[in-house]
Amino acid sequence: MAKEITPRSEDYSQWYLDIVHKARLADNSPVRGCMVIKPHGFAIWENMRDALDGMFKATGHVNAYFPLFIPKSFLSKEAAHVEGFAKECAVVTHYRLKNDPNGGGVIVDPEAKLEEELIVRPTSETIIWNTYRDWIQSYRDLPILLNQWANVVRWEMRTRPFLRTAEFLWQEGHTAHASADEAMAEAKLMLDVYAQFAEEYMAMPVIKGIKTPNERFAGADETFCIEALMQDGKALQAGTSHFLGQNFAKAFEVQFLNKENQQEYVWATSWGVSTRLIGGLIMTHSDDDGLVLPPRLAPTQVVIVPIPKPAPELTEAAEKITAALRAKGIRVKIDNDDQNRPGFKFAEYEMIGTPVRLGLGARDLAAGQVEVARRDTKEKSNVALDQVADYIENLLTEIQQNLFNKAKAYRDEHITRVDTWDEFVEVLDNKGGFVSAHWDGSTETELAIKEKTKATIRCIPVDNPLEDGVCILTGKPSTQRVLFAKAY
Amino acid sequence: MAKEITPRSEDYSQWYLDIVHKARLADNSPVRGCMVIKPHGFAIWENMRDALDGMFKATGHVNAYFPLFIPKSFLSKEAAHVEGFAKECAVVTHYRLKNDPNGGGVIVDPEAKLEEELIVRPTSETIIWNTYRDWIQSYRDLPILLNQWANVVRWEMRTRPFLRTAEFLWQEGHTAHASADEAMAEAKLMLDVYAQFAEEYMAMPVIKGIKTPNERFAGADETFCIEALMQDGKALQAGTSHFLGQNFAKAFEVQFLNKENQQEYVWATSWGVSTRLIGGLIMTHSDDDGLVLPPRLAPTQVVIVPIPKPAPELTEAAEKITAALRAKGIRVKIDNDDQNRPGFKFAEYEMIGTPVRLGLGARDLAAGQVEVARRDTKEKSNVALDQVADYIENLLTEIQQNLFNKAKAYRDEHITRVDTWDEFVEVLDNKGGFVSAHWDGSTETELAIKEKTKATIRCIPVDNPLEDGVCILTGKPSTQRVLFAKAY
Repeated sequence: MAKEITPRSEDYSQWYLDIVHKARLADNSPVRGCMVIKPHGFAIWENMRDALDGMFKATGHVNAYFPLFIPKSFLSKEAAHVEGFAKECAVVTHYRLKNDPNGGGVIVDPEAKLEEELIVRPTSETIIWNTYRDWIQSYRDLPILLNQWANVVRWEMRTRPFLRTAEFLWQEGHTAHASADEAMAEAKLMLDVYAQFAEEYMAMPVIKGIKTPNERFAGADETFCIEALMQDGKALQAGTSHFLGQNFAKAFEVQFLNKENQQEYVWATSWGVSTRLIGGLIMTHSDDDGLVLPPRLAPTQVVIVPIPKPAPELTEAAEKITAALRAKGIRVKIDNDDQNRPGFKFAEYEMIGTPVRLGLGARDLAAGQVEVARRDTKEKSNVALDQVADYIENLLTEIQQNLFNKAKAYRDEHITRVDTWDEFVEVLDNKGGFVSAHWDGSTETELAIKEKTKATIRCIPVDNPLEDGVCILTGKPSTQRVLFAKAY
Repeated sequence: MAKEITPRSEDYSQWYLDIVHKARLADNSPVRGCMVIKPHGFAIWENMRDALDGMFKATGHVNAYFPLFIPKSFLSKEAAHVEGFAKECAVVTHYRLKNDPNGGGVIVDPEAKLEEELIVRPTSETIIWNTYRDWIQSYRDLPILLNQWANVVRWEMRTRPFLRTAEFLWQEGHTAHASADEAMAEAKLMLDVYAQFAEEYMAMPVIKGIKTPNERFAGADETFCIEALMQDGKALQAGTSHFLGQNFAKAFEVQFLNKENQQEYVWATSWGVSTRLIGGLIMTHSDDDGLVLPPRLAPTQVVIVPIPKPAPELTEAAEKITAALRAKGIRVKIDNDDQNRPGFKFAEYEMIGTPVRLGLGARDLAAGQVEVARRDTKEKSNVALDQVADYIENLLTEIQQNLFNKAKAYRDEHITRVDTWDEFVEVLDNKGGFVSAHWDGSTETELAIKEKTKATIRCIPVDNPLEDGVCILTGKPSTQRVLFAKAY
């Protein structure tokens, strides 16, 4: 199995696709740009979702569900939103099929044309704020702290599993507040939640930052983001949190009676992460032998392989270990398949990224020990059977930390400060990663740099120190460095 | 609040809508037939989903996710499926909007017309079986035991929140097997899972049965169902499990090499329950004061109301009770709102169906007790503070059982055996409920009875005893009684 993966050094893009398919995460589908998320990929998403959902609820949010379809006219109501979102959408125009009178299967019934076309949601600000108008009258109705887990559709021309698909799964938080300060605090809080999730669960270090006006969400006054670095030196926007000001409240006429008894437009945020995170997870940790998963998100954390094949005394010992691990809340399975040999199985578990593998043979059992192999470093140790549960509990924590440390070291090595245009181009072309450079603050310059190098401003880090300098492209004065990178 | 609900005796249908809106379960949306599921309604769905998901996983199933869109041609491939499902569907014909050159907001870009229209999934057999063709080669690839939690769309003309909506949330299991027996066993197993969930979680008694050929799922060889009885005497189909034979395997050319080394078409099942269950839950237990929820599905099981308003010593006592209840896994909240009076709050918690309410005043505290009110019977008791956690733990079990017993007694009283047409009509018109009557077994007679009375054959119970008789309509010989009812 493992040999079938294209090495990263040979073709990074093909390596990624190989991992997606051979680690059984997703398949292509007959629908352009839409993927089938396979059970192993979906189990990772379930673990992500459950962890995030717990964090959202712990910060006072509740879930709800809004319609998949948005009346076309809604998309025109917020001017900036139209520009950014009303374009590449799936449009429902009819509501009925009928049998082809000429026997050619089913055809669209021309008589079942909708009066107003419906758009399959690319994001739900418009339909949600249209609803909030009915929910909010007074400051007593605020804040509203809602989240939705949903599928959304954006008709992308070039797609790649998880990273960019026409349909994807995500969560979108939509909150309503009585003041700008409170909404801004919410947007920053959710950015922190995302960063904490990325680092503690995904073991993926991220930079918290602010987007430039040009990279802002369509309809936001400020967009915060977490940016991660992939192994090929390209950045990945892993999550965004938007301070929407009063833009959607004004577009949908959502006012409330404030404590001073005056009508005021409501303040808003929205924030989201998606199945794109799985793409980030793959490209942060995996290697040429397959997927590498951080233990906290691995569907199976430990697999026990009887050697050379299942036998009653091995099964008995394996079940004892399983019980001890389950008692510690560890997700473990015994591989009782008797068709394939251990070597095949080992390669298979390396491919799908199981963090810890136990090899249990009769000789091990006689010696009162078991072989423990970790996926991240490929190291093996013999561990006494009566200590194996504690050992593995610690090992899972260590693997989680090791993956984070390794990714962070790589990321930190790939933040390069440059002060000249030549250096800038050189680093982008050869080393990759984030380039910390001065920029004159204009969208014109930002676009010119993108045009010349394909690099975009990923963010202005939230704790960015001020520093006088000159723009790498225009030489105009600059007050701070920003992070550039080529990005997914 | 409570007074705003239309009594059931006056207008059952309006009572239902009042509960949906005033218990804050769902709102109408600007999209025809689509609802907004509000946080309280969605929290009930989350509890349902988590319980069912656990039961699916305990029976060996895993989750996956397939595309929202289905190529139109797929719907024509299974002949019976076309007839039943390819009609009232949302059809995507375009993939781009553009700014109206005349300034009228956004319009559909006529140049972005899809070559083949896409259907928003009404159910996913076709796209899943198209995928299974790539996944299944040999008997070693079987069984496949998949489930998907998803939204689906069926363009219904007359809609009602939860019971019948254009978009709804559901789960759809799709399994693939190497033999007819195994697939049939799976279909029956999932029927049992649904029945167990309905009775143990929803406290909603159900009859497990088989649908007549006329009522079968489009593409199934056999459809099993659970049927519940609502308080107005109408039946509700609460879940279905289908033995699909080899129909979809043949339509999508899914063959496997069996143990005898021969190519054979794969055997299939599918099974689903939806947000319709929330409609069933409402109509099984609720009363003229609002929603009544079985404790196992209630988002909040116990609410503590300080009387007459929050005060430090009351909060302290409430927090002690809360800690003791949480330690038992009970979902509890303290109402620390200081704007509304206890009477208002009591009505509000009755409206939203919180199973147990504690009223905690200074005098109670001095007497070392708390007032415990149960939602189902409206009974109140004074309970010693040091016993309240155990008391409530038992009480929640008792309420759960009481709701089931009450619903079962009502249901059992409303299964009426009749032997003549006049009795049949009389029971349907006046008493309602299930009518157990002989039927000659023909679709023609079934449809004639529906035409005359609006009653349909809900099911042939799975453990139905054979009994000679004559059809109530035609007088032809019959071998068993079947259950008729008017239904949602």
